[in-house]
Amino acid sequence: MRVLGIDPGTVLLGYGVVDGGASTTLVGCGVLKASPRLPVERRLCTLFDGVCEIIESFRPDEVAIEEPFAGVNVRSAFMVGRAQALAILAAARAGAPVSYYSPAEVKSHVSGYGRGDKAQVRAMVMLQLGLKELDESLDATDALAVALCHLQTRHVERRLASGR
Amino acid sequence: MRVLGIDPGTVLLGYGVVDGGASTTLVGCGVLKASPRLPVERRLCTLFDGVCEIIESFRPDEVAIEEPFAGVNVRSAFMVGRAQALAILAAARAGAPVSYYSPAEVKSHVSGYGRGDKAQVRAMVMLQLGLKELDESLDATDALAVALCHLQTRHVERRLASGR
Repeated sequence: MRVLGIDPGTVLLGYGVVDGGASTTLVGCGVLKASPRLPVERRLCTLFDGVCEIIESFRPDEVAIEEPFAGVNVRSAFMVGRAQALAILAAARAGAPVSYYSPAEVKSHVSGYGRGDKAQVRAMVMLQLGLKELDESLDATDALAVALCHLQTRHVERRLASGR
Repeated sequence: MRVLGIDPGTVLLGYGVVDGGASTTLVGCGVLKASPRLPVERRLCTLFDGVCEIIESFRPDEVAIEEPFAGVNVRSAFMVGRAQALAILAAARAGAPVSYYSPAEVKSHVSGYGRGDKAQVRAMVMLQLGLKELDESLDATDALAVALCHLQTRHVERRLASGR
């Protein structure tokens, strides 16, 4: 199963694509950027078109989006809500099922506990993907962590369903 | 100038279209509904498609969206941010300029002060549009108020620009 993970923002939007199966492999990752000097409608369009292109290129089976509910103020929540919406719309219009994970869930799945810092998450992402180097920003690493979290969740669900 | 006003929500999204000029007239208004039982991605898609259809049918020159920053909690802010994003995306993809107004700005423009209740806003919207009856929900009335607020703002801008 191929999963696209998204760390949503209206200036920087991280994405990471991983394939799960016998082994878990990195397919691609990066960061979409929209200048904060652009009006919000141009930024949302730019990022929406970008996510649509990523979905068209990588054709993920499912999409996982980070959903922070705690630790942000109301103004940030508006911005993250907007960024999530464009990612959700791009995924849903392409017919890909969408799942949502809090930052604590992602950290807990990837690094074993919910309070790891970004550098620890990066180290665990590299370990799980068998990478010695990962020349991408932390926003892309966070997106990969969301994708890995979703793969693990699905794996556990399948094991529970099969009674193993 | 034709203005589409939007009162964004992820379950109910109000819209109102008015023509400004020698007189201000109601073109259309209503409420898009997405069942709260649907997953968020289906709701966002339904409302996005709905706003795109409204823009295609009414062909507004500009779009005005209500943007509440105060008086909401973080969870509501996520939801409103998502609803705004789909409206902003629909407008921007159709090439219509987008403006944003706080609820206080809308009330102040439409009813003369920033703290009018919904019934007062409705009465002033009907007065300004020369309507004796308005058989629409308050969400649609709020959207009409946003559109009227934008028309008045543009009118003032034009007068200032022409030095009158």
